[in-house]
Amino acid sequence: MSLLQDVQNTGAADFGRPLFVVSLALFAKDGKVLLCRRPEGKNLAGMWEFPGGKVEKGETPSQALVREITEELSLTLAENNLIPASFACTKDIIMLLYFCKDWEGTVIPTEKQETSWILPEHFKDFPMPEADILLCRQVWYNDYVGSSE
Amino acid sequence: MSLLQDVQNTGAADFGRPLFVVSLALFAKDGKVLLCRRPEGKNLAGMWEFPGGKVEKGETPSQALVREITEELSLTLAENNLIPASFACTKDIIMLLYFCKDWEGTVIPTEKQETSWILPEHFKDFPMPEADILLCRQVWYNDYVGSSE
Repeated sequence: MSLLQDVQNTGAADFGRPLFVVSLALFAKDGKVLLCRRPEGKNLAGMWEFPGGKVEKGETPSQALVREITEELSLTLAENNLIPASFACTKDIIMLLYFCKDWEGTVIPTEKQETSWILPEHFKDFPMPEADILLCRQVWYNDYVGSSE
Repeated sequence: MSLLQDVQNTGAADFGRPLFVVSLALFAKDGKVLLCRRPEGKNLAGMWEFPGGKVEKGETPSQALVREITEELSLTLAENNLIPASFACTKDIIMLLYFCKDWEGTVIPTEKQETSWILPEHFKDFPMPEADILLCRQVWYNDYVGSSE
């Protein structure tokens, strides 16, 4: 078990401490990437983001991502198909981004959240939370200009 | 202050929990990258690695890297010149890798550790710790085949 993960489950975020999260760029064969819209009633509602979530007690980052993607989207991922891509730090979170091009199943959002397959060149048209924007800049836009952390 | 960072200073590593570390690929104008050799008497002595170290209490990851590089190599970095590049997870550590192409000063290893400027295509000739190898595979070799975590 990781203490880094353990602190996520002890209300660490409530004290303004960074949250340790994992996220996924899931690539379809046509190069489009799956974005998910945060549902009404949640923090940052209406924003589009890479799916993923918090690393829970006793999980490695890739285990957490496999679980989150099954829970959110009903997809089955193999840990070995998760490729570390980049990371972003804001004052609130440390976010690890993985790439994945192979998976099993069909996207079925379990919270009825809106999803969309988007070409990276069109990410700019979608409002995103800060960490996701930083990741887009680093990985796709090539216009990263320093962290906000 | 980050609890993620705080746990680094409470002996977390002693209990087999992952350590949260930052590392640097410092690029010279000719494309060579600085590698540092771990001194005798240290864990993994003789191995070559990207310079960096643990995130200490009260630091963000980029603040930690600026401090470590000054302490180890007498170089001055600006946080805004640190570009998140990738990350690696092993069972022992979570390592964030930053790129940097602009810095001030001349490399003066403060622990008399051996250093060398190496073209990425030659990284394979240098024995490295597991996390550094994973980063090389992801960032430069393009032969990443799944994590060992």
